[in-house]
Amino acid sequence: MAQDMTLLWGSGSPPCWRVMIALEEKKLQGYNSRLLSFDKMEHKSQQVLDINPRGQVPSFKHGDIIVNESYAACFYLESRFKSQGAKLIPDGPEEQALMYQRMFEGLSLYDKLGAVIFYDYYVPEGERLESALKRNKETLVTELKLWEGYLEKLGSGSYLAGKAFTMTDVVVFPTVATAFRFGLSAERYPKLGAYHALMKERPSIKASWPPHWLENPKGQDTLKDI
Amino acid sequence: MAQDMTLLWGSGSPPCWRVMIALEEKKLQGYNSRLLSFDKMEHKSQQVLDINPRGQVPSFKHGDIIVNESYAACFYLESRFKSQGAKLIPDGPEEQALMYQRMFEGLSLYDKLGAVIFYDYYVPEGERLESALKRNKETLVTELKLWEGYLEKLGSGSYLAGKAFTMTDVVVFPTVATAFRFGLSAERYPKLGAYHALMKERPSIKASWPPHWLENPKGQDTLKDI
Repeated sequence: MAQDMTLLWGSGSPPCWRVMIALEEKKLQGYNSRLLSFDKMEHKSQQVLDINPRGQVPSFKHGDIIVNESYAACFYLESRFKSQGAKLIPDGPEEQALMYQRMFEGLSLYDKLGAVIFYDYYVPEGERLESALKRNKETLVTELKLWEGYLEKLGSGSYLAGKAFTMTDVVVFPTVATAFRFGLSAERYPKLGAYHALMKERPSIKASWPPHWLENPKGQDTLKDI
Repeated sequence: MAQDMTLLWGSGSPPCWRVMIALEEKKLQGYNSRLLSFDKMEHKSQQVLDINPRGQVPSFKHGDIIVNESYAACFYLESRFKSQGAKLIPDGPEEQALMYQRMFEGLSLYDKLGAVIFYDYYVPEGERLESALKRNKETLVTELKLWEGYLEKLGSGSYLAGKAFTMTDVVVFPTVATAFRFGLSAERYPKLGAYHALMKERPSIKASWPPHWLENPKGQDTLKDI
């Protein structure tokens, strides 16, 4: 049990979800879980600022140790609890290299997805341009096709960095799931669709599925045409 | 010697520089170093695309293993050559946590710096807005002050994640150096200025200093007023 750990998080935030999956995979259930409301701006509240000067979630504390950046928290948990739960960093040099490579490419996927689905959030009203959003969509399509190709090359039933589940899946799956939540077509992106379906059955994913997605299973259709 | 390694890179690119510093710190001199010209669009050439489908540098190969993402390459090199050269990941849980935390915050610093100094590169001519650039500058100032505060708290002579040089310095220093190259004032940001001066004396930094900065020591003044 992980009673000396506290996670402040928001439902549906991919960075928060990464840490929650890592905690599940490392068998660190029982941590103090505090679900905050983005609508009520609770991520800017004092309880967040006390841990995270950026006023962002996830905010994560283990005893006196604070690790808020989601990738950082995942690395930290794997390092501290190496022999507990799933092994997230493979030993083989090739497997490890691919894991690192895809993990960090995952940040491109996340940024490019956000530049489309959160366009109105990031860009103030008077500055929004059809041309910019169109370009962001094209950039996202190119990125998604790259991942579709990666999965195709790895063969069916694969995870993002090979035949085994790794840290790459911990940090990139929430982005993939968010794309489907926002209407990505599993027919047009069948390998990503199959990966999404495979991962949805994993206990750590089930245990950490965003509660407001459970309450309201129908998502948006922002990406339905791409 | 690292004759089985090839790095394709561009002068002044912070991501390329990260990998070059890691190679120096891990005593992996003697790799095949191929300096490409961004002006001639050589980063989109076939020799890059053969290694990196994104058409980006760094592109890095070790034998048959390819790791192009700069953070991924640094992790990979530290893992493969753990007991060679500088130890980049500290053993202590607190030191390690801070190293991971600052490393990934470094991506925010890099993005926010880029959104100012490369604004004209990222945003097509017809879409540029004074209001957006002004906001980007304000965001960058907030970010720089955060780092100034981190260094102040660590005390003089510190590296970015404490008293010892770590992977955080490998990946974040190129961003700090770029900020000063683009005119950041060491008087207004004295802790960052002192850190910049400290790091400039380090052999790995000297050995990897961008050649076109050496040729033309005077940089831009984009950031002089922030």
